[in-house]
Amino acid sequence: MPHISLPEGFPGIRSLAAYRPDTGAALYALAEALLRGDSSFSQADAELIATFTSSLNQCTFCTCSHAAAARFLFESNQDVVDAVMADYHTAPISDKMKALLTIAKCVQEDARTVSEDIVANARLLGATDREIHDTVLIAATFCMFNRYVDGLATVTPTDVADYIPMGERMGTLGYVPPKPQA
Amino acid sequence: MPHISLPEGFPGIRSLAAYRPDTGAALYALAEALLRGDSSFSQADAELIATFTSSLNQCTFCTCSHAAAARFLFESNQDVVDAVMADYHTAPISDKMKALLTIAKCVQEDARTVSEDIVANARLLGATDREIHDTVLIAATFCMFNRYVDGLATVTPTDVADYIPMGERMGTLGYVPPKPQA
Repeated sequence: MPHISLPEGFPGIRSLAAYRPDTGAALYALAEALLRGDSSFSQADAELIATFTSSLNQCTFCTCSHAAAARFLFESNQDVVDAVMADYHTAPISDKMKALLTIAKCVQEDARTVSEDIVANARLLGATDREIHDTVLIAATFCMFNRYVDGLATVTPTDVADYIPMGERMGTLGYVPPKPQA
Repeated sequence: MPHISLPEGFPGIRSLAAYRPDTGAALYALAEALLRGDSSFSQADAELIATFTSSLNQCTFCTCSHAAAARFLFESNQDVVDAVMADYHTAPISDKMKALLTIAKCVQEDARTVSEDIVANARLLGATDREIHDTVLIAATFCMFNRYVDGLATVTPTDVADYIPMGERMGTLGYVPPKPQA
């Protein structure tokens, strides 16, 4: 049960955007720009980094919903999402993406541990400044969303099937905040 | 030195908002709504929670800049800012604010540790749902800003005097993103 009285009928982050629409609008604008805007990453790769970070933070709602979006976007290659969550070192992704996920992991744990060596390794494997930037910002942003959703104990569906339509909506319509309640 | 090539002449978060203006605009809109918008907190109290969270994350840039904003806003009572960073349990703040800072500390460490008991205690001391919500969102948001700023090793002034005009600007003009460079 949520720690505060939230609008009913919305799970996770949507209940919070409905509760406080002004911050909700800024948060949804951030997610839309970061995951679906003009980026060096495909939307699928951006959702993969979001899913990975959320799984490290053990945030069930964000992990399940963004994993569903990533699976939808990876289409026939969707097994990559669960492989990354199980062990990204052995997942069927590029060495560049592995190096970027190492940066994301440092950001999640303690961003001061993102060292010159770790960044140089990502660059050696082909990562651009913009990809390094976007990786850090996606990881940092999900460290926020995960804490916001879990810190208020928002409603978290337990049936994985409930996340499939959410993922499809995130992968097609994107991040549209709920309409403020009358 | 920053891990990526950033626009020169801007410290910390401002260099990042200048580097990627679309996400920068959303991030500044979030800070403006959260710290200066329609809130249950005074701007001084909101900045105090931001400073406290940033100090827990040991993010020098965000701690120094938001502490400067908080000191500016607390005016003659500005010693409260350093007292909270030293030990909030003994700082000259209300018991309600101490209970809210305990919630912020849990959010910073692992948001799943925000327990019903901790929330009930804050409520017993007078905290409203909205204050509990805003505390969680401020703490979560600064867990993002701190990671973004430190994960890319942005320019961090070392002279505390450099933060005084920043704090005054944050306390008066608020959060206005830098103009995108031509």
